[in-house]
Amino acid sequence: MQVWKDYQEKNNDRFLNELLALLRIPSVSAKAENKSDMVTCAKSIEKRLLEAGVDKVEIYPTEGHPIVYGEKIIDPSKPTVLVYGHYDVQPAEPLELWKSGPFDPVIVDGKIFARGSCDDKGQMYMHVKALETMIQTNTLTNNIKFCIEGEEEVGSPNLGKFVAQHKELLKADVVLISDTALISLDTPSIDIGVRGLSYIEICITGPNRDLHSGVYGGAVANPITILAKMIASCHDENNHITIPGFYEDVLAASEEERKLMAGAPYNEKEFEDDLGVKALWGEKGFTTNERTGIRPTLELNGIWGGYQGEGAKTVLPSKATAKISARLVPNQSSEKITALLLSYFKKIAPPGVTVDAFEHHGGEPYMTPIDSVGYRAAAKAMETTFGKAPIPVRGGGSIPICALFEKELGVKIVFMGFGLDSDNLHSPNEKFNIENFYKGIETIPYFHQYFTEMSQ
Amino acid sequence: MQVWKDYQEKNNDRFLNELLALLRIPSVSAKAENKSDMVTCAKSIEKRLLEAGVDKVEIYPTEGHPIVYGEKIIDPSKPTVLVYGHYDVQPAEPLELWKSGPFDPVIVDGKIFARGSCDDKGQMYMHVKALETMIQTNTLTNNIKFCIEGEEEVGSPNLGKFVAQHKELLKADVVLISDTALISLDTPSIDIGVRGLSYIEICITGPNRDLHSGVYGGAVANPITILAKMIASCHDENNHITIPGFYEDVLAASEEERKLMAGAPYNEKEFEDDLGVKALWGEKGFTTNERTGIRPTLELNGIWGGYQGEGAKTVLPSKATAKISARLVPNQSSEKITALLLSYFKKIAPPGVTVDAFEHHGGEPYMTPIDSVGYRAAAKAMETTFGKAPIPVRGGGSIPICALFEKELGVKIVFMGFGLDSDNLHSPNEKFNIENFYKGIETIPYFHQYFTEMSQ
Repeated sequence: MQVWKDYQEKNNDRFLNELLALLRIPSVSAKAENKSDMVTCAKSIEKRLLEAGVDKVEIYPTEGHPIVYGEKIIDPSKPTVLVYGHYDVQPAEPLELWKSGPFDPVIVDGKIFARGSCDDKGQMYMHVKALETMIQTNTLTNNIKFCIEGEEEVGSPNLGKFVAQHKELLKADVVLISDTALISLDTPSIDIGVRGLSYIEICITGPNRDLHSGVYGGAVANPITILAKMIASCHDENNHITIPGFYEDVLAASEEERKLMAGAPYNEKEFEDDLGVKALWGEKGFTTNERTGIRPTLELNGIWGGYQGEGAKTVLPSKATAKISARLVPNQSSEKITALLLSYFKKIAPPGVTVDAFEHHGGEPYMTPIDSVGYRAAAKAMETTFGKAPIPVRGGGSIPICALFEKELGVKIVFMGFGLDSDNLHSPNEKFNIENFYKGIETIPYFHQYFTEMSQ
Repeated sequence: MQVWKDYQEKNNDRFLNELLALLRIPSVSAKAENKSDMVTCAKSIEKRLLEAGVDKVEIYPTEGHPIVYGEKIIDPSKPTVLVYGHYDVQPAEPLELWKSGPFDPVIVDGKIFARGSCDDKGQMYMHVKALETMIQTNTLTNNIKFCIEGEEEVGSPNLGKFVAQHKELLKADVVLISDTALISLDTPSIDIGVRGLSYIEICITGPNRDLHSGVYGGAVANPITILAKMIASCHDENNHITIPGFYEDVLAASEEERKLMAGAPYNEKEFEDDLGVKALWGEKGFTTNERTGIRPTLELNGIWGGYQGEGAKTVLPSKATAKISARLVPNQSSEKITALLLSYFKKIAPPGVTVDAFEHHGGEPYMTPIDSVGYRAAAKAMETTFGKAPIPVRGGGSIPICALFEKELGVKIVFMGFGLDSDNLHSPNEKFNIENFYKGIETIPYFHQYFTEMSQ
């Protein structure tokens, strides 16, 4: 609508500056040292929601970080959209690889560089500014609720309880989430599924102290060697995961879906060049897009043990630790796979070591039906602003709370994401293109308009 | 001799305090930040040698850390003993496991806890105090030279050049080193061999940046997984090293030596309990003492990659790195094994990653003949002060400069060590028993006396 366009053209610079202010708050949910920053960030969002025109906003404390709830109810008989987003971000490490401060946003070549610029402060904030656009132009046709949490990056440990205890408050006809990516601005896409997650940590202890590797080398199990052998045992030569039962519940994608996926634009050479690798690597029998979308995976997220400093130290270490996570596909259960992983690593350890294994967090895989009102409204909105229909794709990431919302609220989730795979999510130099930020603010009002129309 | 005993009884407290002062200098050769501490430590040893009564002392700068040379020449026609030791120490990390500051020595239950207390400041300083004893009691019967370097823990990169350029200065009839351990004060022993060393570092690079493990998991090689597979490939199910050619040059110990070794006191249960492990682990077909003495080994000294902080980060890291070292036995060449390791890890890497591999340092294995004058003098000295003859054993550690001294000076090395395997060398809470320190000071003068007598 022209009124939206006019309003946004006049205000986009301010929208951007407001986002930059939000990005300056180091809201790292994983770190205890940032606890007060989390509160600061929640209060900042509360303020921005009020400025945008919500009727009501409240910060709900949890056992972890607070949840910000806001709502604009124009008429209880109209359709209601619940927008979910998160204001917490991943840790910024390794800091030395950032070209600018992770919490000191800079704009280079039309891109906003900062931790959280895309995941998810930038994408979440598009919804706040879309609401403002509709309110200021008197064009809001439905009710909008916001549920913005601060623990997505650590597995949303307290959101489940909150949702279960506030079903009436959160009641909606659809949940709308912008926390995924487009193929490109030229090739819009909508994620129809996200993978689930099981995230564990295992610590191998050999001798009760670090030993001299000459005096003791050869006598006792080296925990790094044992950990390496345990990790190596998880994949066979075709990169299939060998943990017994891992694939048991996998609901395979249909041949039709695989055909559709194969039709999406993809250039392997460009993909390799972007990542700087000479060859890709993964489960035999599946394409790259299939491996990141419809297949479960097991990735090492971190490892450490022994001497990691300058020079050489001839130590046989006492401990070695790894962070390991699996991405899950429909019909796999996060709880079941987590239990499987924990028991696997404990079981295969040789008698010379002890294994401490525990769960970090998990989330169920999720699929959204493409014939739902929500999906159709999102597809039409994107077609309106991009000039072409979006391609349905499967995202490789995880949004653990999808299954939770569907279970507690009985509604479907729609993923309307405006990031790009090249946005360096969870990596140094995370960025969000300003053009994508504005495109989101432009598209979201259409979603609400079409959702209202299609619901009637 | 009673005069020695009397002198030492009167002065032992002072000897101990002098050692504690030396231990307060954080002379970590591996770390650039300790460069000035290395100079401080060298100057302190210079001062102590002069106080002990050497005629001449000089600090020789090198491209790395300085070498301290001192000498007491009573008569050029008398036998000359060259004492080698080192004033540098291993890094103290992990600091959180120390019960007291690594450079703030404390005495608990008759044990001196500090980095370098045993390896090698404490053992080196016994020779300084033995010299003082002989000079002050007018009982010195031979010439003594000291060569105390500051780079033993980083592979003595500059000692070779120094020795080659100062053959006349260092000329001696035997090299005496106290940098090894006794079985116990009840069971004295002398090392007749030390293992060689090859120490390398390998860094695996996958994608050119850290990636989101959901978006990219399954698409590209994870460098931690690849590194784990590479490490796991180095040992088979019997813990034999599988790297082609690794055992090629190994000169097997004789059946006679293996029988002698089997006769040394050893209690597997006590050994396990001391290390806190339920089972030992190592190369099949060899006893624990054989595995740490006469067999080559390959140990992981350190590993790191990806997220190692608090909580969970779903990252697929760009890099993973490991520090790896092999201990070598007679007839293996450090240079050859290092080249073998470097080429092995480069060769087995899959095409999706790149491998940077480089050498930290190495040293040749060394064996000393038990029929030499030096060995016989050491054995008789220990028999005099311990009341029983020492058992010849093979040490698992490495003293890289042995082969160098033999080659450049044409003399044999004698290892007369007074540490214990339980001294936590290279580990947190390194210690040296005061009793062992005093026993060394008591025994060393006998070595010089017997060496002079036997040489005539």
